[in-house]
Amino acid sequence: MTYNVAILGASGYTGAELVRLIATHPSLNIVGLSGNSKAGMAMADVFPHLRHLDLPTLTTIEDMSFDGVDLVFCALPHATSQAVISQLPTHLKIVDLSADFRLRDPAAYEKWYGKPHAAVELQKEAVYGLTEFYREDIKTARLVAGTGCNAATGQYVLRPLIAAGVIDLDQIVLNLMAAVSGAGRSLKENLLHAELSEGAHGYAIGGTHRHLGEFDQEFSAIAGRPVHIQFTPHLIPANRGILATTYVQGDPQVIYDTLNAAYADEPFIEMLPMGQAPSIKHIRASNFCHIGVVADRIAGRAIVIAALDNLTKGSSGQAIQNANLMLGLPETEGLMLAPVFP
Amino acid sequence: MTYNVAILGASGYTGAELVRLIATHPSLNIVGLSGNSKAGMAMADVFPHLRHLDLPTLTTIEDMSFDGVDLVFCALPHATSQAVISQLPTHLKIVDLSADFRLRDPAAYEKWYGKPHAAVELQKEAVYGLTEFYREDIKTARLVAGTGCNAATGQYVLRPLIAAGVIDLDQIVLNLMAAVSGAGRSLKENLLHAELSEGAHGYAIGGTHRHLGEFDQEFSAIAGRPVHIQFTPHLIPANRGILATTYVQGDPQVIYDTLNAAYADEPFIEMLPMGQAPSIKHIRASNFCHIGVVADRIAGRAIVIAALDNLTKGSSGQAIQNANLMLGLPETEGLMLAPVFP
Amino acid sequence: MTYNVAILGASGYTGAELVRLIATHPSLNIVGLSGNSKAGMAMADVFPHLRHLDLPTLTTIEDMSFDGVDLVFCALPHATSQAVISQLPTHLKIVDLSADFRLRDPAAYEKWYGKPHAAVELQKEAVYGLTEFYREDIKTARLVAGTGCNAATGQYVLRPLIAAGVIDLDQIVLNLMAAVSGAGRSLKENLLHAELSEGAHGYAIGGTHRHLGEFDQEFSAIAGRPVHIQFTPHLIPANRGILATTYVQGDPQVIYDTLNAAYADEPFIEMLPMGQAPSIKHIRASNFCHIGVVADRIAGRAIVIAALDNLTKGSSGQAIQNANLMLGLPETEGLMLAPVFP
Amino acid sequence: MTYNVAILGASGYTGAELVRLIATHPSLNIVGLSGNSKAGMAMADVFPHLRHLDLPTLTTIEDMSFDGVDLVFCALPHATSQAVISQLPTHLKIVDLSADFRLRDPAAYEKWYGKPHAAVELQKEAVYGLTEFYREDIKTARLVAGTGCNAATGQYVLRPLIAAGVIDLDQIVLNLMAAVSGAGRSLKENLLHAELSEGAHGYAIGGTHRHLGEFDQEFSAIAGRPVHIQFTPHLIPANRGILATTYVQGDPQVIYDTLNAAYADEPFIEMLPMGQAPSIKHIRASNFCHIGVVADRIAGRAIVIAALDNLTKGSSGQAIQNANLMLGLPETEGLMLAPVFP
Repeated sequence: MTYNVAILGASGYTGAELVRLIATHPSLNIVGLSGNSKAGMAMADVFPHLRHLDLPTLTTIEDMSFDGVDLVFCALPHATSQAVISQLPTHLKIVDLSADFRLRDPAAYEKWYGKPHAAVELQKEAVYGLTEFYREDIKTARLVAGTGCNAATGQYVLRPLIAAGVIDLDQIVLNLMAAVSGAGRSLKENLLHAELSEGAHGYAIGGTHRHLGEFDQEFSAIAGRPVHIQFTPHLIPANRGILATTYVQGDPQVIYDTLNAAYADEPFIEMLPMGQAPSIKHIRASNFCHIGVVADRIAGRAIVIAALDNLTKGSSGQAIQNANLMLGLPETEGLMLAPVFP
Repeated sequence: MTYNVAILGASGYTGAELVRLIATHPSLNIVGLSGNSKAGMAMADVFPHLRHLDLPTLTTIEDMSFDGVDLVFCALPHATSQAVISQLPTHLKIVDLSADFRLRDPAAYEKWYGKPHAAVELQKEAVYGLTEFYREDIKTARLVAGTGCNAATGQYVLRPLIAAGVIDLDQIVLNLMAAVSGAGRSLKENLLHAELSEGAHGYAIGGTHRHLGEFDQEFSAIAGRPVHIQFTPHLIPANRGILATTYVQGDPQVIYDTLNAAYADEPFIEMLPMGQAPSIKHIRASNFCHIGVVADRIAGRAIVIAALDNLTKGSSGQAIQNANLMLGLPETEGLMLAPVFP
Repeated sequence: MTYNVAILGASGYTGAELVRLIATHPSLNIVGLSGNSKAGMAMADVFPHLRHLDLPTLTTIEDMSFDGVDLVFCALPHATSQAVISQLPTHLKIVDLSADFRLRDPAAYEKWYGKPHAAVELQKEAVYGLTEFYREDIKTARLVAGTGCNAATGQYVLRPLIAAGVIDLDQIVLNLMAAVSGAGRSLKENLLHAELSEGAHGYAIGGTHRHLGEFDQEFSAIAGRPVHIQFTPHLIPANRGILATTYVQGDPQVIYDTLNAAYADEPFIEMLPMGQAPSIKHIRASNFCHIGVVADRIAGRAIVIAALDNLTKGSSGQAIQNANLMLGLPETEGLMLAPVFP
Repeated sequence: MTYNVAILGASGYTGAELVRLIATHPSLNIVGLSGNSKAGMAMADVFPHLRHLDLPTLTTIEDMSFDGVDLVFCALPHATSQAVISQLPTHLKIVDLSADFRLRDPAAYEKWYGKPHAAVELQKEAVYGLTEFYREDIKTARLVAGTGCNAATGQYVLRPLIAAGVIDLDQIVLNLMAAVSGAGRSLKENLLHAELSEGAHGYAIGGTHRHLGEFDQEFSAIAGRPVHIQFTPHLIPANRGILATTYVQGDPQVIYDTLNAAYADEPFIEMLPMGQAPSIKHIRASNFCHIGVVADRIAGRAIVIAALDNLTKGSSGQAIQNANLMLGLPETEGLMLAPVFP
């Protein structure tokens, strides 16, 4: 059976990545594409790499018909998303890729995003979209909130360890490197090729990155007490990929075994042998997450490193994985594309 | 129906690209992988990006069994290939990705490759693997010789124009930019990241690149007279992609119309609108070739630019396209993956 | 003796490159920096790499005092430059890095830049700033017009050959690769790291690039008849550098000897041995230009390749070389910095 | 006054960087270059970017004359260095860039480098070359041991903090990103452009990197007790630069003030304003080190980030800074080159 989907915000990178993945997905059919600033344009003019596909012309959201649409991917900017989703027909299943419905607590939303939430009822209804940990809820959800790409990476490392109580909750350092596509297609001086290539720098240092809202919410819920990690993202001169180097205090072998057990049956999470470490080069353009554990020379400390593609497993791939579940399709359908190397 | 395939030389980039593509090909099943220098190793240790796949361990060619194998992809170095293929069981269909069987004339082979051909009979039998132009022969071939990646790109531009007699055969300049994966995984100083990034330079300048043997053979055959083009490849700091900027003398609109007609029904060749030009960014990791035509300010001259991915359309994707034909499968099967962008 | 200089438009890349070079120039002293959109900011906040220097705060041009200033570098956008320079005190020597005074013929200016020139008298006075060929005029000039960076590269290849009458003037193809800093610090989608890295494409194809105005003017003057070359620039994923691959028809050894003789005494132009070719990797961040000549396999044809750094020899280094001459300083002063490699 | 210097191991990256810097150093004159594997070659053939310089031909060390030589830079591989230096004439001042004389304790050397030291007397004599902290000893030293590039970066962050007793010595995490030139010009698969570009990964994870020997030695000496930090280096796709993100526990403002006071008079160490962070883009090809301090959201924790160029401040620039002191020259002579941006 084939399902009809629409993509709102198809002129950004996560929108394009959705189209790329759906192009070879056997059960999804794109019937609508919106991109307000580029309404009226052919997708091939906005993204020439999609030239070979027969796609709908970009429209405004207002001009889009949702008749016969089964599911909507909403790849709009933060804040815009909640306004748009509030107005969508209620028969639609929705996977939202923005930050708008990730935080369950309206006060937390306001703290991290700087203004009150405008769709509190939807916020309550939304299921957090980290598939491996919310799988059952996602199957029956109408609205799923895709996670932050950094937030997903860090949680793949830390959730099982916090749940199992095998690490010191007050000494967690998450040092992260992120490729530039995570910043989107926005025109900012620091995203120019001339500014970023041959460079590397930290940003949102000291605990100001919004994905900390997700870490705080999820880790505290698992631990049953407040958990605050240290988190420093860095921008590196690469297109795709997140590498999360996590410093934890606990027994390295226990840590490895805990993660290994947690992900034994997961189709997209690959544990490396003990002592090996992943590279973002090896998960590019795929829905896989590679995780490695190495013991530190200091007893009782370990480094856990996870790698995933921010646009795929960190965003649009995750969105399709969730859509598959919501539509009753096999979870891995359309997502088993091997990473592109070199 | 599923066909069993083996890959000889699976530890190089074209071998890895074959595995990547076959991983989601519905009708091909990998039953053997050879890599003499890495025999005994798991593919995941040679190419960690393939870690999620259940693949045969690498063996030597000598230890490989060809019972039940339908088709072999031979991704071995030049010269090695002819020696190995001579010894293979004759029931096998073979797609060779090396240069060994591209040139029909033994003298031409010796001129460009510096030694006599060691398997002249096979050389006569081999069909040149530029699918769009040798499709019918490939369907019934036992041995198909994959083209050079640069040679493929240049031929997509020039074959229809030479055949139609719409350009001056003595004034053809093919200026080409090639990404680094085309040089393979060999340990050479000029392929180090520190040497190549932030650099760009020509190589094999002045008509010494071996792919000229293919150009000479094919273009002269089409024209019915000797045709010698000027061809200068350049290495650029990118992983994948070839951009061929071709300077031809003839009526630009006629040139455009000729190419447009030639490729109207081709599934993988995309003509851009007149006046637009392609980028290697837009065909990455796909089997598509984008072609654009722009009129020069000097009347009677045009610039034709083609872009394709050297590892996919220029090599391993082409090989699978040919294998599909040889096995009676749909030509596009497993190859409609959209380009990866950004 | 020390001379006081001011830089107008110091918040762009060529402005920053001027500051970098002047920082270790023994005879130049920066007394004023303008940057209208960033007036009031410290240079260290606009360009953190200049943090260690004691520099004037950025001002508007209106607020800048030119008392005691000997020479002004004008690194403003095209069109702005002519308006500003018209208003500057006449005691100032001026090196303009914009396109405003490169074309002597007002009609040519209007053709290439789309509007009438607003300072025709100054246009007549300006000396074209290709140092090696206008050295004597530059020494006594009040206003020197810096060349286009692509225009400089192409002229280093072609001027001596046209002057010596050793190539066919109607069969010149200049295929050029340019790094991204040549496009400046402007916020354009195609200059984003995510759009440009791993990409390569032609632009201004077919004879529309404005630097053709300079080629036409200079080459026709040398030849004493109209000369129109074919010129296609390409953008490549690198920060700095231009590689001009030039296809000419003439005797290769004569071509080599002609260039070798022309540049025998030039401090910044390095001829490679016959048959060798340069790389942009080897001239980075320096004022040197490397030139190589290779014979084609077709008799009577040669490929001449030149490499220089667009921001240094192509723009700000050239500007200082000219300023040295205008101020009576040694031409090479402050400019002998070796290229940065790797 | 001019001093004659020789460079042993001039065919590697640190050797080339020494030549680049000395090219514009007013008091140093290169009279000898060795490179055993490339003896007999012109430097221009090994490093074309140095083509404009008049340099001695490469020789073997055996064929080099040290008559009239004042100082030798020894840029040889580890282990080779101690054998060579043992045999050098004793009138020579020596700056060694290898790891051979960094560790004062022979047992520590054997632990980290896997074999006994072969020149224990020299090891005792050698002065550790971190200029800002061993300045007085360096002035009178005959043999100075250049620091590890990562070791230098980490020490600029941590030495003043440990000395002042303002951080918890048992909770120090040093997460470091290193550009690829730090790995040298060796032919290793993981250093190929195709393997490294678009990638990022940790290496020597868990406390196995040899620069930990330097950290342990220096930090323990300062603290008067054993100090063991956690240290994870990562390789990133850039040519030059180290970014050390250091997680420390202590009062952020006190930490900032301590560093600010320590470096107030240092010519090459630039403290950023509190709350700002450096980028490797802004110190490229220079001898400057930028340091920033940011308070974490968790009270009593700070992130301190340092950036320097591994080939310049981390190696060859440091070596010249030390040579200046050893020869009685101004410490900054020849080293005030501004960083190259973009």
